[in-house]
Amino acid sequence: MRRIMLEVAYDGTQYHGWQLQQNAVTIEGVLNQALSDLLKEDIQVIGASRTDAGVHALCNVAVFDTNARIPAEKIAYALNAYLPEDIKIQSSKETMPDFHPRKCSSRKTYVYRIHISQFPNPMERLYSHYIYTSLDIKKMQKAAEYLVGEHDFKSFCSVNSQAETTIRTIYKLEVDREKEDIVITVSGNGFLYNMVRIIAGTLIEVGAFKRTPEEMEAILFACDRRKAGPTAPAKGLMLAKYEILDGGHKIEQK
Amino acid sequence: MRRIMLEVAYDGTQYHGWQLQQNAVTIEGVLNQALSDLLKEDIQVIGASRTDAGVHALCNVAVFDTNARIPAEKIAYALNAYLPEDIKIQSSKETMPDFHPRKCSSRKTYVYRIHISQFPNPMERLYSHYIYTSLDIKKMQKAAEYLVGEHDFKSFCSVNSQAETTIRTIYKLEVDREKEDIVITVSGNGFLYNMVRIIAGTLIEVGAFKRTPEEMEAILFACDRRKAGPTAPAKGLMLAKYEILDGGHKIEQK
Repeated sequence: MRRIMLEVAYDGTQYHGWQLQQNAVTIEGVLNQALSDLLKEDIQVIGASRTDAGVHALCNVAVFDTNARIPAEKIAYALNAYLPEDIKIQSSKETMPDFHPRKCSSRKTYVYRIHISQFPNPMERLYSHYIYTSLDIKKMQKAAEYLVGEHDFKSFCSVNSQAETTIRTIYKLEVDREKEDIVITVSGNGFLYNMVRIIAGTLIEVGAFKRTPEEMEAILFACDRRKAGPTAPAKGLMLAKYEILDGGHKIEQK
Repeated sequence: MRRIMLEVAYDGTQYHGWQLQQNAVTIEGVLNQALSDLLKEDIQVIGASRTDAGVHALCNVAVFDTNARIPAEKIAYALNAYLPEDIKIQSSKETMPDFHPRKCSSRKTYVYRIHISQFPNPMERLYSHYIYTSLDIKKMQKAAEYLVGEHDFKSFCSVNSQAETTIRTIYKLEVDREKEDIVITVSGNGFLYNMVRIIAGTLIEVGAFKRTPEEMEAILFACDRRKAGPTAPAKGLMLAKYEILDGGHKIEQK
């Protein structure tokens, strides 16, 4: 029995998120089916990030165990033939038998894309959140600084979350201009439910002069979801990078 | 009565091309309907480029006549509320009463995008042609040089074309690398039916060592569609720019 690790890219537009559901098409469900068809075993993957409906990924990570003899590196090519065009494996390799992508030390990077041109570009409609009003990027950058570091992010966590602790570390939170987009890039050791989308929604309010950058500190300290801005739409969010730290050894789950 | 000029951006994925058809959804058909609904008149647009099914545009041009009193510049905003997310107006303004976007001197720029990463990126699937094999970009660049200038492009014209003459001028034909894409950019005074896609299909064969760059000259001189490469898929093609030359005055139609 070997444990195989996949890097999975997907356009989340047509899916009810990552996580397996009884009556809805999900990334995890499609992956399980394609792997089971390919390997002639009953395969169930474990995903690194259980992205919401409509969220995209360049490199979500999934692991599964198999007795099949196909070389690990070939699985990516073979599996892609079983997958739809909006889900494609980017790599496959053997990993440690006890490696669990949600129970190891890792660094995840999300990108939230805001499209701010005068008129919406149809080619960006699936991968960005379009805003008519202009945004003050300098104010957004200043507001973002307050969130970097280890904090209790309860104000930026959906009330539906079942996380044991709401303390997380943000390593980097940058706001950049790319042509007619404003791009929020955030790296951290883990993210609470809807955390990046609530950060994006709050930064948009700062950029639109509805809040001052300095309010970010009070929002953070309040530990109250009602103090932060709205949850920005899913389609602007992309899981861009997943890095395994400390060799991927098991840690206490948060 | 005023003549209004629109710049139209669209994702062609879901449409049977630009041109009005009886039993299929087309860009022109959707535009006519939306304009007629907005202006309460029977509007029929004239398009600059009758793009094929699946081809995209950042700036196709359409004109129409109206008696409505709405300021020309406001039409873009108002019309976008009547249009689906994959068709969006980028500008609207009044133009000369006899301006016809296919009967004036113009320069069109098309971009053909080839995605050549090891594994396909789902977020690029709608806007590029994915190729497994690597391509020699230097050979493609050398081959492209033969096509620049005024030539008879009959070899690069679909046999279904009804054009009176197959002579056209290519001002620029460049092949560039952009991350994991090869991008072909071609500007000309007009293009024959499927011309850019046949040029792209032939350049891909050169890049894949199926033809030498020097063969391009013989293909051009043959004036025979069977000598050129295949028509590359529609989804890689984007009308990127449409420039009116000489003030947009009427010329003989080609």
